[in-house]
Amino acid sequence: MRVDLALIHYPVCNRNREIIGSAVTNLDLHDIARAGRTFGIDKYYLVTPFADQQRLVREILDHWRTGYGAAYNACRKEALSIVGLCADVAALYEEVTAKWRQRPTVLATSAADSANLLGYDEVRARIFKGEPMLLLFGTGWGMAPELLAGVDGFLPPLKGAAEYNHLSVRSAAAIILDRLLGER
Amino acid sequence: MRVDLALIHYPVCNRNREIIGSAVTNLDLHDIARAGRTFGIDKYYLVTPFADQQRLVREILDHWRTGYGAAYNACRKEALSIVGLCADVAALYEEVTAKWRQRPTVLATSAADSANLLGYDEVRARIFKGEPMLLLFGTGWGMAPELLAGVDGFLPPLKGAAEYNHLSVRSAAAIILDRLLGER
Repeated sequence: MRVDLALIHYPVCNRNREIIGSAVTNLDLHDIARAGRTFGIDKYYLVTPFADQQRLVREILDHWRTGYGAAYNACRKEALSIVGLCADVAALYEEVTAKWRQRPTVLATSAADSANLLGYDEVRARIFKGEPMLLLFGTGWGMAPELLAGVDGFLPPLKGAAEYNHLSVRSAAAIILDRLLGER
Repeated sequence: MRVDLALIHYPVCNRNREIIGSAVTNLDLHDIARAGRTFGIDKYYLVTPFADQQRLVREILDHWRTGYGAAYNACRKEALSIVGLCADVAALYEEVTAKWRQRPTVLATSAADSANLLGYDEVRARIFKGEPMLLLFGTGWGMAPELLAGVDGFLPPLKGAAEYNHLSVRSAAAIILDRLLGER
């Protein structure tokens, strides 16, 4: 499928709504790569401008793709084969636009209600018709307003029977990939 | 809803199909509690017979329910309020049977194909009619055969377009709760 997922570590908000860069975590990398590979996305991009964070990501990827981990767990190697790294959102947009030879539809995910919502069934149908889509997930307390201002639309917040909807980004990504790409 | 989820740390298999007890992880505890609370389950039980593991769980729960964490993040306190602890599967069955005044339907989840599958739509309909359900998730390389022999049925493996289906238990739990309880 012509679907990419990006986990944004900058620019995001902290709990006081200040713009910060968040730390990459080993577990976001593994869990979302495994879900991405399961649901057949093309690439899972980590977006961080920090050299030390990029180095950490490369070390983890090397371990599992070509180091000890590759022999220990071939399934993990396969999942992490879809992971890419971008320094910022501009570089991300450039890479996916070059890959698909057109700018993909950029959709943000958010736990808050937003204007410009596109329903899961509509987005799923457009994906299965071949439209390239880039799904943005935030870290910290969510993506910065300046970044959200530039997207084409929002996926609806995930809700259950309860009022509570504070899912981890790992859980939210898994559920959204299942809704958009899961076997039915 | 009359739905409970249990994460089984014993008896499970290791990669050589030997029966072992797996370690509790902080992240399974948080991620699955947040998903469970979002989708309105009654309780999320951790099943481990090991005293040091039970102590670790209690320390984490105390931190977020009544310690510093409770003031720092009330959402997390709310999520972790649904977590319970059982020493073994017999104690788990006893507790949920007493709670619902009947033995719930016990369904196992598995990445492998199993006989006795119940579809997601059917289970969802039965939940919404009020039937108590207990969903078992394994850790390590999956639940022990002796445990699986005692369940009432299996939920189908989660699949996307790809052949690969090696989701983390955190991702699998989130997706399954969304399929069974998510707002549509």
